[in-house]
Amino acid sequence: MTLEADLASQLQYARIAGRTIALASGEQKNRALAAVQQNLTCRTDDILAANQSDVARARDGGLTAALVDRLSLNRSRIAAMARSVEEVIALPDPVGEIIARWARPNGLEIIQTRVPIGVVAIIYEARPNVTIDAGVLCLKAGNAVVLRGGKEALATNSLLAKLIVDALQANGFPPDCVAFINNPDREAIQILKRRPDLLDLIIPRGGKSLKEALAGAEVAVLPHFDGVCHTYVDRAADLKMAEEICFNAKCSRPSVCNAMETLLVHREAADRFLPAIAQRMTAAGVELRGDPQVRTILPEARIATDADWDTEYLDLILAIRVVDSIDDAIEFISCHGSGLADAIITGDPEAAGRFEHEVDSATVYVNASTRFTDGFEFGFGAETGISTNRLHARGPMGLRELTTYKYVIRGSGQIR
Amino acid sequence: MTLEADLASQLQYARIAGRTIALASGEQKNRALAAVQQNLTCRTDDILAANQSDVARARDGGLTAALVDRLSLNRSRIAAMARSVEEVIALPDPVGEIIARWARPNGLEIIQTRVPIGVVAIIYEARPNVTIDAGVLCLKAGNAVVLRGGKEALATNSLLAKLIVDALQANGFPPDCVAFINNPDREAIQILKRRPDLLDLIIPRGGKSLKEALAGAEVAVLPHFDGVCHTYVDRAADLKMAEEICFNAKCSRPSVCNAMETLLVHREAADRFLPAIAQRMTAAGVELRGDPQVRTILPEARIATDADWDTEYLDLILAIRVVDSIDDAIEFISCHGSGLADAIITGDPEAAGRFEHEVDSATVYVNASTRFTDGFEFGFGAETGISTNRLHARGPMGLRELTTYKYVIRGSGQIR
Repeated sequence: MTLEADLASQLQYARIAGRTIALASGEQKNRALAAVQQNLTCRTDDILAANQSDVARARDGGLTAALVDRLSLNRSRIAAMARSVEEVIALPDPVGEIIARWARPNGLEIIQTRVPIGVVAIIYEARPNVTIDAGVLCLKAGNAVVLRGGKEALATNSLLAKLIVDALQANGFPPDCVAFINNPDREAIQILKRRPDLLDLIIPRGGKSLKEALAGAEVAVLPHFDGVCHTYVDRAADLKMAEEICFNAKCSRPSVCNAMETLLVHREAADRFLPAIAQRMTAAGVELRGDPQVRTILPEARIATDADWDTEYLDLILAIRVVDSIDDAIEFISCHGSGLADAIITGDPEAAGRFEHEVDSATVYVNASTRFTDGFEFGFGAETGISTNRLHARGPMGLRELTTYKYVIRGSGQIR
Repeated sequence: MTLEADLASQLQYARIAGRTIALASGEQKNRALAAVQQNLTCRTDDILAANQSDVARARDGGLTAALVDRLSLNRSRIAAMARSVEEVIALPDPVGEIIARWARPNGLEIIQTRVPIGVVAIIYEARPNVTIDAGVLCLKAGNAVVLRGGKEALATNSLLAKLIVDALQANGFPPDCVAFINNPDREAIQILKRRPDLLDLIIPRGGKSLKEALAGAEVAVLPHFDGVCHTYVDRAADLKMAEEICFNAKCSRPSVCNAMETLLVHREAADRFLPAIAQRMTAAGVELRGDPQVRTILPEARIATDADWDTEYLDLILAIRVVDSIDDAIEFISCHGSGLADAIITGDPEAAGRFEHEVDSATVYVNASTRFTDGFEFGFGAETGISTNRLHARGPMGLRELTTYKYVIRGSGQIR
């Protein structure tokens, strides 16, 4: 069988099996998820063995230490996966929720109710925990799930997917609710993205090469890509607070999408603020790049080029720019931001209000770190990714973002 | 300038101008819309003159009478457009609505608030009223709008778009909030659909050829396409009610997407129901096509072929099938329906409940005609089309479906 035919048949079976999980009650789904949790605990040794073979292969293949670390499991990481399943079990079932309900003058009763999306594919990279985290979330939302992890973690992911399938089967669900794609070629992604007839949604969890692989997708994609995040320190900012927030936004985890890449400082605050934050950033190993005004205050900063203002460093590098007004800050963010997370630090309620209203990013902060753009931090209880899309879901995604809705209309013989 | 460069520049200006309308208050937007309404009234003679030139050209070009009718305006149709603007003015402003609001244990306050989508293109065909109806709706939702109507109505649409632009400008909005595409070639659609960087959404309003033109779009599309709608007459149906509903669903306007195409009848009701409904349908000029069981009761029906069960006739043709059970009806709808609108007629609450739960269509009816799948009938106050998509918007679309959301997060120095 060709890869194309093979994948199409997996997706077709997933579509059919998906009807069972779509119609299942919250209790039925939770019983299956509890069995997933149990399987993770009981089969920890087998998971470790599979993972060790992946890790050995990765080391032989010359993978970077950082990638090998992402790939590696140990008892505590497996226990964390089991706990995350427990958290998903504790979340309320989104399916069947009544979103709105109204009556029409002709007596028709219209009920807008939440239903699963259908067949959802998660395409991810080295981290094997995504197999469990994303798989379990999709199933809880009543979707059939297609899992396509990175080739480095094939043995681990394959076993983890099997543990989910076993748990489903032991609880009366068809095994095809989970389609694990064990073909490590990029070609599989090219096939998946061209089948809107068989696949309702793709959620990618990965970097630039995955973004490129999904270009031109005909299936709907909820991307989780660029984060060029700004923090604007207003002239009315509490500068000590600004320093703590900026340091946190840049340094607590520079490799993630919600880390600050560009610092904007009001010219009236620049003289007082920049030396202090520069000292702290430099001590933490951050390379500073500034515009000419910044460099009059921080001559040690490198010259920022045009490209710097649009770059997602994901690294210990910070671009800094002095702005003349909040208008300039908002305008700059509108031109150079990626629309993911941007913050203002200010004690002025008017400035805060304008920033909230006029900055059109998925998450707009007043006096807090952009690092809170995250499903757990939002209280969604689990990580489905952060959408950089404007439609369907925007920003941190929870269970609800894995659903759609339908209208039920109850009549008594109405005609039009 | 090439068409590509020309369109790109229109879209870029729309993006910039769109920020003004995105941030405008409901009153500001309503003032501009009131001026649109006034322009329609004051300039009725000019609109009629432009329309007469389109109609004359269409007649010379040999357009069908039905298409010429769609294209033609008269005083009463123009007055209806003005009334529809008035209705949109009366709708509450969706922008700024607080969808959800909660506090986190760390003191962060999270506010999910409704914002415009950005730049929305409406691609439509002969009917000039769409220029006003869809244009005004998009603007009320705070979006810049790109209007691309059919070439038959170019003179009319061009003037109508100008009346909107004049009204915007007279009320302090930049004229580029409306981009009217006066190039009648299909090439323009091919360019628009490949610019996700400049365009956030395409809403097509048209038939099969438009669907084909938009295949492979990289911009998000909320399609309004196929409606293969079923009515299932259960064994517990009130057969007089079933007859009225089926007749309405098929005959009140057979050319629209929410008209019934397939009638399913429980075998225990077939003998009693089919002769009566067949007589009434035949008298109304409906051609009946049945499966073998139907034809034992209605020998005059033509034999339905496999293709009939998947065909959107949009005409006075009805496919009829006898089913053994509600399970068979639900399974049949799941295989052959387009997921737009499906109905059960039954007096049995258990059957009604199963149908509501198990049929996964955008609108699922109990004891009412599928013809109610419509924005006006849902009480949305205006017609934005009916989405046959599963993501973002499903079923009849109102103002809300022309918006997205952002999160505002208010802190007091929180770091992570």
